Amino acid sequence: MLRYLTGGESHGKCILAVMDGVPAGLHIYKSSIDKELARRMVGYGRGKRMQIEADKAEVLSGVRKNITIGSPIAMIVENKDQSIDSLPVVLDPRPGHADLAGILKYDLKDARSVLERASARETVGRVCIGAIAKMLLAEFGIRVMSHVIMVGGIEARTKGLGFNQIITLAEKSDLRCADYKAAARMREEIDAAAKTGDTLGGIFEVIIKGAPPGLGSYVQWDKRLDANLSRAIMSIQAVKGVSFGIGFKLAERKGSIVHDEILYDGKIGFYRKTNNAGGIEGGMTNGEDVVMQAVMKPIATLKKPLASANIKTKRPVKAVVERSDVCAVPAAGVIGESMAAVEIAGAMIEKFGGDSVTEMVRNYEGYLKQVKEI
Amino acid sequence: MLRYLTGGESHGKCILAVMDGVPAGLHIYKSSIDKELARRMVGYGRGKRMQIEADKAEVLSGVRKNITIGSPIAMIVENKDQSIDSLPVVLDPRPGHADLAGILKYDLKDARSVLERASARETVGRVCIGAIAKMLLAEFGIRVMSHVIMVGGIEARTKGLGFNQIITLAEKSDLRCADYKAAARMREEIDAAAKTGDTLGGIFEVIIKGAPPGLGSYVQWDKRLDANLSRAIMSIQAVKGVSFGIGFKLAERKGSIVHDEILYDGKIGFYRKTNNAGGIEGGMTNGEDVVMQAVMKPIATLKKPLASANIKTKRPVKAVVERSDVCAVPAAGVIGESMAAVEIAGAMIEKFGGDSVTEMVRNYEGYLKQVKEI
Amino acid sequence: MLRYLTGGESHGKCILAVMDGVPAGLHIYKSSIDKELARRMVGYGRGKRMQIEADKAEVLSGVRKNITIGSPIAMIVENKDQSIDSLPVVLDPRPGHADLAGILKYDLKDARSVLERASARETVGRVCIGAIAKMLLAEFGIRVMSHVIMVGGIEARTKGLGFNQIITLAEKSDLRCADYKAAARMREEIDAAAKTGDTLGGIFEVIIKGAPPGLGSYVQWDKRLDANLSRAIMSIQAVKGVSFGIGFKLAERKGSIVHDEILYDGKIGFYRKTNNAGGIEGGMTNGEDVVMQAVMKPIATLKKPLASANIKTKRPVKAVVERSDVCAVPAAGVIGESMAAVEIAGAMIEKFGGDSVTEMVRNYEGYLKQVKEI
Amino acid sequence: MLRYLTGGESHGKCILAVMDGVPAGLHIYKSSIDKELARRMVGYGRGKRMQIEADKAEVLSGVRKNITIGSPIAMIVENKDQSIDSLPVVLDPRPGHADLAGILKYDLKDARSVLERASARETVGRVCIGAIAKMLLAEFGIRVMSHVIMVGGIEARTKGLGFNQIITLAEKSDLRCADYKAAARMREEIDAAAKTGDTLGGIFEVIIKGAPPGLGSYVQWDKRLDANLSRAIMSIQAVKGVSFGIGFKLAERKGSIVHDEILYDGKIGFYRKTNNAGGIEGGMTNGEDVVMQAVMKPIATLKKPLASANIKTKRPVKAVVERSDVCAVPAAGVIGESMAAVEIAGAMIEKFGGDSVTEMVRNYEGYLKQVKEI
Repeated sequence: MLRYLTGGESHGKCILAVMDGVPAGLHIYKSSIDKELARRMVGYGRGKRMQIEADKAEVLSGVRKNITIGSPIAMIVENKDQSIDSLPVVLDPRPGHADLAGILKYDLKDARSVLERASARETVGRVCIGAIAKMLLAEFGIRVMSHVIMVGGIEARTKGLGFNQIITLAEKSDLRCADYKAAARMREEIDAAAKTGDTLGGIFEVIIKGAPPGLGSYVQWDKRLDANLSRAIMSIQAVKGVSFGIGFKLAERKGSIVHDEILYDGKIGFYRKTNNAGGIEGGMTNGEDVVMQAVMKPIATLKKPLASANIKTKRPVKAVVERSDVCAVPAAGVIGESMAAVEIAGAMIEKFGGDSVTEMVRNYEGYLKQVKEI
Repeated sequence: MLRYLTGGESHGKCILAVMDGVPAGLHIYKSSIDKELARRMVGYGRGKRMQIEADKAEVLSGVRKNITIGSPIAMIVENKDQSIDSLPVVLDPRPGHADLAGILKYDLKDARSVLERASARETVGRVCIGAIAKMLLAEFGIRVMSHVIMVGGIEARTKGLGFNQIITLAEKSDLRCADYKAAARMREEIDAAAKTGDTLGGIFEVIIKGAPPGLGSYVQWDKRLDANLSRAIMSIQAVKGVSFGIGFKLAERKGSIVHDEILYDGKIGFYRKTNNAGGIEGGMTNGEDVVMQAVMKPIATLKKPLASANIKTKRPVKAVVERSDVCAVPAAGVIGESMAAVEIAGAMIEKFGGDSVTEMVRNYEGYLKQVKEI
Repeated sequence: MLRYLTGGESHGKCILAVMDGVPAGLHIYKSSIDKELARRMVGYGRGKRMQIEADKAEVLSGVRKNITIGSPIAMIVENKDQSIDSLPVVLDPRPGHADLAGILKYDLKDARSVLERASARETVGRVCIGAIAKMLLAEFGIRVMSHVIMVGGIEARTKGLGFNQIITLAEKSDLRCADYKAAARMREEIDAAAKTGDTLGGIFEVIIKGAPPGLGSYVQWDKRLDANLSRAIMSIQAVKGVSFGIGFKLAERKGSIVHDEILYDGKIGFYRKTNNAGGIEGGMTNGEDVVMQAVMKPIATLKKPLASANIKTKRPVKAVVERSDVCAVPAAGVIGESMAAVEIAGAMIEKFGGDSVTEMVRNYEGYLKQVKEI
Repeated sequence: MLRYLTGGESHGKCILAVMDGVPAGLHIYKSSIDKELARRMVGYGRGKRMQIEADKAEVLSGVRKNITIGSPIAMIVENKDQSIDSLPVVLDPRPGHADLAGILKYDLKDARSVLERASARETVGRVCIGAIAKMLLAEFGIRVMSHVIMVGGIEARTKGLGFNQIITLAEKSDLRCADYKAAARMREEIDAAAKTGDTLGGIFEVIIKGAPPGLGSYVQWDKRLDANLSRAIMSIQAVKGVSFGIGFKLAERKGSIVHDEILYDGKIGFYRKTNNAGGIEGGMTNGEDVVMQAVMKPIATLKKPLASANIKTKRPVKAVVERSDVCAVPAAGVIGESMAAVEIAGAMIEKFGGDSVTEMVRNYEGYLKQVKEI
């Protein structure tokens, strides 16, 4: 069982995470964690905080001489801006944020105590966790990547591009978008929104390559991998929708067209020519790439603030303006990778057991052989 | 903590469910469970099984003289068709189903052992659970309903209709669609698909009315209500996408337009004029209706079967044809209600505690007063 | 992950259980479940209910042609005595039972609604689950047994007897006691107690033979196998204490004497000559037999009833007298086996993964080889 | 739901803990955490490490201006001795420790990687968590304390002493023992053991005062409070047995004597004159003090080392000698308080819900009134 908890406020001392259940014997590259943290910070349209922070993780436990020992892995990322105690009280809640509901729920007198934790800065901890998960998955040849497929209504076209092409192109793009023409238009949209104090949302896609068939299960509702991946991705701040494969277009097409016919080849076993299902059938991986999309709403902190009502006086006000971004879809994609990687790593650990990487790999290879010889 | 397990195969003896965590003192209307089971069975485009089964639940435990006693509630629905042992071996897996991945995962020699559990008949158990959850929610004035908003590409228009109008109209429609003109065209599409041995998918919407602000939380990823609702809905067979509020359209619009501005009224407290967020901000209910959509793929069992490969011989075959429906989106909506109701009931139990309805209601009313007097 | 829920009241329709997480490909012997149910019913000192009921389990799901298919296994045991609705209201709570606290907690007006579920008849469901767990463990050569080591202050002596001798002797004894001289005296104590309308408690021991080293873990508090076994055994009605190895005597002895020195033999690997630790070190199995004891209090339903206070009038009364036993320690031991078997099975599934018995055994054998070649 | 994870190795950078589910509005006294940490370190018979470390917790998140905000509370205690990377490889496993099984389980080549996490220093994190739990319980007038009742076979007598007397006396004793005569003899035993390089175990008792009736439940096995308390206490390093009330003596006495008769008084409601049950009936608190005992085995690190076998050579060796204590029963009692406090706090949160202390207290008071008016 893989599980974790994160802690920390946006302008508190740090963000930290404890991860329990990583097998022993995994090489942890500290630089890989920091690289993921850096990937989380970039993206055309990000705000000033990204220039202030230069997130570096310190691994506090669970790793000896760069190798996991089976014990919980604790990681901490210090905040450069630790001004939480001197920041002003927030009484004018921002529409689209946790501010108002958070105050009501926790009986607080200052929405600052809400927004400091509700902030997407919390995802620093998730990305640390995700980086470890990715390292584990790499032992099995599984890769998890993301790219941006829409910002402000501009759609990227990646039809015909393979996984490697997409990630190479996306990785070089400040919008994490593999369609550079579309990216140019997205930048224009972001610039236009920035000028008017507005914000933009978009869609990112997460792709998991190399997962074996049979992760997840149909036998009980909460074992379905697509359900758990959905929870993981939907839990990212500002995400309002998730889908697999061709997603909502499935409502418009016939069954004879959308289902991915089954073929067999002596070398590779059962396979598909299409992947409309996004690699999931019956709540399980089917051996094809897992492909999922998520829509992120426009950031809810606007420089041109929205109408609100003061918590104390109840009178109409303009919502408070916090330092924020114009568009953070590329970063959300990176966080999406992390959340997906953790879910897949968890499903791998559940299916293959094992307390060391050696044991887990041995079990995995036994299964691959079994699947091949069916 | 509300939790449950279901068991049972499609053509086995029964489907059953055990639900743990329902407070004592709740009146259980047996007829309400059966009514939900009946709602699950209807819908234009359903197949022959729906004529065979007339699902009635028997409550086996946890209820004395129609009142819950705090103990686990077990419910059983007998299958009329219990032919599981005489049904033919399935070696030609259906694309879009659990058949192939299930066989590989569980090392089975007959996909029958997969499809009997992967079948959506399993949702009979979920609907029983959901019926109990709805009865609990009714004690707090919370209602959960669904309607169909797309089938086979035909979109229903419900703009301008209120919750009560939608559910009244939907409830009378054999497609659970509040737009009768659209429904007529959907039926044509279903008929056309039926003629060619094809199937159709669609989109349903689930609406939760009356939930207080502050269910769910932003403090830890797995406490977000939208994340948990997504998992619950995505766990329904054939659902491939979920979204809240205006969903994927958020990728095309500006922040200044989509966020729901906050107003205050002495009588009703804080409120919104719009509900683009679908009633969830920061992973919590904000007091508005929770509105979510889910896309269901076309049913993967086609009378005009798709290409597949035999599990033993590996040679190309046509997929097996099982008895099935042409379109089951209305039923999926009913199941979606159940899953949503269970999640909301669970969030209510977590927030308000209480081992009896009396205690839970007392705690709830105390909170409403607190929220009002903020 | 192995998990389960039970439902059912003592004089309701049935006791039932749903078990999720059993791998596919396990042969289920229906007769073995019934044999365990029969073992639960015997024991010198049992009451009239044991003569009325002749528990037989019906397997409702998860098994096809006697083989598990990976789906949840539901089992039901019908009650012969289903008089719950006609039984008298209970207002005079029995000291030592859930009656009073249960009424307060669940805001009930009749302790009948408490005692019907709090009754040890609920363990029928646990024994069904335990029977399945034992069948799974048998695939790995793991056996779980119990014997009675004290009743009414009379201590059994089994020093010098091996596992096989103990279980053979215990299995033939109507007190499940391997020391027949002690058993004779225990019977006398039971007879004496019966005469005066009194009851007796005792101590049973559960032994798990054949578990590999490394089940459970020290890395997080809730992964310790001894902690989880303790929870499982302490959850049995009337159990008030649990211990491992030489248990509470450890408070009287020196470290140099109690710890089990480590030896090595080319054929069997690392081993011990003593087993004072009861097979658990650092929260993990160490390869020796897991040996744990549990104390059961005297049954709290006395024919010569204790003083109590009426729930309504608050006036002094004699506690209600329900049909009950004089001593049920042997039965508690059988239930203890079930609970222990489920915990060990769960730990095996977590460590070795696998969705089929074939896969799980393959992984297990790989681990045994690894351990041997260290 | 209250949950937490700890991380950290004995000679690593720190021990840390993240705690999720504490309601908002709780005053956190930093000094109270440190006081608990100091209590964990004292005790006649402790070793050198206790002189090196002077544990102070830093609260990293979840608290603003000394008040909880509902967010996860992260705490860190720095190790003074951070020599983990320079400490020698351990190949001679200590009997009684996790060393050998840990190496086998995690496929490690150095038992150092096991013992660094298996060490009881990990409990620093649990004590931090427990300190927070105690502060929450204090809001409801619930107190959790411990005292030592046996060391090295010497029994303390506290019959006739009330809760307040016991804790006052115990708190002043360097053995946390309320019977000063017994304590003097315990010290002699410890001195004698120290001289011969030996170690001693003992028994501590944890008492929870002020818990309302109805925490925990009989409705499902894993909801029983005694079961969960047992798991929590048994998870403490070196604890090998737990019991409630008069514990294992229940095996020697008659039902007519041991059960606590029920009385009623207009002012205090239902109550008992005796408490042989240790405050738990039917898996629930019954309103009396919860009283439980735990036996701790003699510390397994001996200066006069035990026989073992080298992991590599397999040849007979003396077990490695690590810095350690002669007796740590008083400290174990303090850790026991922490674990018990967390379980009770969790049960309170589950029963009373509430996201703020205000809300939780309001719900609690409503329940007390309900109980009184039954």
